[in-house]
Amino acid sequence: MATEHPSTQLGDLQDQTVAGYRSALGVTHTTTVTLPGIRTQSGFQFEAVDVNFQTLGKLSPARDNAILVCHGLSGNAHLAGTDPQTGRPGWWDFHVGPGKAIDTDKFFVIASNTLGGCTGTTGPGSINPRTGKRFGMDFPRITVRDMVQVQAALLNYLGIEKLFAVIGASMGGMQALAWAVDFPERTRICVPIATCTAHNAMQIAFNEIGRQAIITDALWNGGDYSEPHFPAHGLAVARMVGHVTYLSELAMARKFGRRRQQDASDPHQFSIESYLHHQGDSFVKRFDPNSYLYLTRAIDEFDLFEKAAPEEVLREVQARFLIISFSSDWLYPPPQSRDLVRQLKRAGVAVTYLNLDSEYGHDSFLIDNPPFADVVHHFLNGEYTAAPKRPASSRFVPEI
Amino acid sequence: MATEHPSTQLGDLQDQTVAGYRSALGVTHTTTVTLPGIRTQSGFQFEAVDVNFQTLGKLSPARDNAILVCHGLSGNAHLAGTDPQTGRPGWWDFHVGPGKAIDTDKFFVIASNTLGGCTGTTGPGSINPRTGKRFGMDFPRITVRDMVQVQAALLNYLGIEKLFAVIGASMGGMQALAWAVDFPERTRICVPIATCTAHNAMQIAFNEIGRQAIITDALWNGGDYSEPHFPAHGLAVARMVGHVTYLSELAMARKFGRRRQQDASDPHQFSIESYLHHQGDSFVKRFDPNSYLYLTRAIDEFDLFEKAAPEEVLREVQARFLIISFSSDWLYPPPQSRDLVRQLKRAGVAVTYLNLDSEYGHDSFLIDNPPFADVVHHFLNGEYTAAPKRPASSRFVPEI
Repeated sequence: MATEHPSTQLGDLQDQTVAGYRSALGVTHTTTVTLPGIRTQSGFQFEAVDVNFQTLGKLSPARDNAILVCHGLSGNAHLAGTDPQTGRPGWWDFHVGPGKAIDTDKFFVIASNTLGGCTGTTGPGSINPRTGKRFGMDFPRITVRDMVQVQAALLNYLGIEKLFAVIGASMGGMQALAWAVDFPERTRICVPIATCTAHNAMQIAFNEIGRQAIITDALWNGGDYSEPHFPAHGLAVARMVGHVTYLSELAMARKFGRRRQQDASDPHQFSIESYLHHQGDSFVKRFDPNSYLYLTRAIDEFDLFEKAAPEEVLREVQARFLIISFSSDWLYPPPQSRDLVRQLKRAGVAVTYLNLDSEYGHDSFLIDNPPFADVVHHFLNGEYTAAPKRPASSRFVPEI
Repeated sequence: MATEHPSTQLGDLQDQTVAGYRSALGVTHTTTVTLPGIRTQSGFQFEAVDVNFQTLGKLSPARDNAILVCHGLSGNAHLAGTDPQTGRPGWWDFHVGPGKAIDTDKFFVIASNTLGGCTGTTGPGSINPRTGKRFGMDFPRITVRDMVQVQAALLNYLGIEKLFAVIGASMGGMQALAWAVDFPERTRICVPIATCTAHNAMQIAFNEIGRQAIITDALWNGGDYSEPHFPAHGLAVARMVGHVTYLSELAMARKFGRRRQQDASDPHQFSIESYLHHQGDSFVKRFDPNSYLYLTRAIDEFDLFEKAAPEEVLREVQARFLIISFSSDWLYPPPQSRDLVRQLKRAGVAVTYLNLDSEYGHDSFLIDNPPFADVVHHFLNGEYTAAPKRPASSRFVPEI
């Protein structure tokens, strides 16, 4: 079962083919359930919320091995295994499966599409029960913490009181942070990857460019669009902007350099241009422009310490943390993770921090990345083995 | 005459008001002349070429004090002094004027709008004499070296055989490099700033996103647009992408952070978003989308050493070089300048290199930046004073 060298794979497994790669999990499915609604931070009351989710592995009799994986901007509930419809592996198939970083032989892994998403969970493309029409831009402002409320409702539905771990990268990492703070008694381990506690101006700027590309596409039409009139161009440009920020200069130089695309209609086309076009086109087929607007807005608005000082916000946290950043990630640069580590330590929270050397930028968590996988694997397995002997509230730095 | 602290000014003087700032040059004008056409590298023969240009200062009787300033992507011939139409200072007014970095009391300064531009020099918005209609996308592919050919025609028209110096940043720096190589006997000093000899994949990627934003704007219409149907949204998004790459994360964090725009209709709007919108809107009023496509393409295609090894390409160079990069410029990172310095030294070319500490990213050359101004001022003045005693072909490293 050959996989190409990681240097030949950049970005999300959903958007590209890795020669010879097959998921060890075979075909996996997602399910949609209707759960009791939540009240958003902005004050909107959902009467009910649909949640599309996937589970992998088996819940232990003690119900102590559940890991919630939170996805980033472009992810969804199809975490790992082969999607029966697209034939493609889930977005984190490299790292979730038997013996992998998140070992489905050991853990019960849950992934759900986030509130505001577009693959089965209530979002701007869902029907507004009050009007019988799609929400569109009438969808309420949502926050990362609202997403976590919905995930908590899903855990209630699944009968899981306490998560062994919550793990996520990028926007998923923000959700992991919100879990540790908003549900301290339900979160044993928290693994925020390549993320931050609040976007800085540059991070907001890149998201805003994507939003502008979408809302200035004439076919966006105030968010009221339907096939075939669909702001595909705006969404594609937004994805291209995002994609460049997910990669490192070095990774792009190595993979593309100034090479030309031999099979392009335009002989002047650089390979990097063709690659971006492909990423844009591929994303348009699987993502909703309004969801892009709502999710990026939620990311930009997230500010873990907005209401109170870090020590205050972190006072009730019981989780032990593993924080990972990547040396070449310039979108979520390592200093942001280091700041968080300092804040956690000052608050007396147990935290292990690794800034992993990687050439692949922000997307280092998405690719086949053995050092990253090893760290996550050993941390989770070590903590799980040690867990029964340690009270969840113990606060010291593990030696991993 | 108070100017705000540089930290409050980011980007191009043409697009923002610096409180209390007035040009020391008073009102200045540009002129358009029709010159003999050139044959482009792509093989297109222009029958004639219009060139919009400005001169400042006086040509010395020996005609040995001419400095050609080449502009970047968004510049034009209005280099310094107050534009009588807009009331705004020229794009490099901070650095061109009496006693400034480029001292108009000493030098005869020439600036022209580049071939392919949109402010008076022949470009895609010009009338194609063969059809009587605008060129639009029938405009031929142009290169940085074609731009330099047109500048050489302008110098012929002005009766200037040899430039004391050619200076430019970004795309202007590429033009400066092309001058030293293509007109070695006409170039005494070459000052490439914040530039490179060839774009890497990431630099191409950001330009391509801007191009995609424009060509997917429905109003672009294959390049055949006219007011009021104009791809303003695409061009604005392109400019926003560019603008973020011109700034540093630190400069944005300091100036905007997570502050909200108090006067915005949307109380959630971050100041950085409002700033980007302003930059986009301002640019749309003064730039042509097709020009944006042609100029960014020329930049991406530029590759000084494409045809031969550096030592071969640089063999005939007579110019002495001052190369400047900025520590926080992540669009044209200092290692690109260092590579060029090495190539020049290996080829026996006299080169002084400075990587200036600056927090302001790529746009460090555009802002009120005294350390940068000092370096340019002293280098030019020192070389000009020393020049008569040194043959132009002497090749040793100056002690500046």
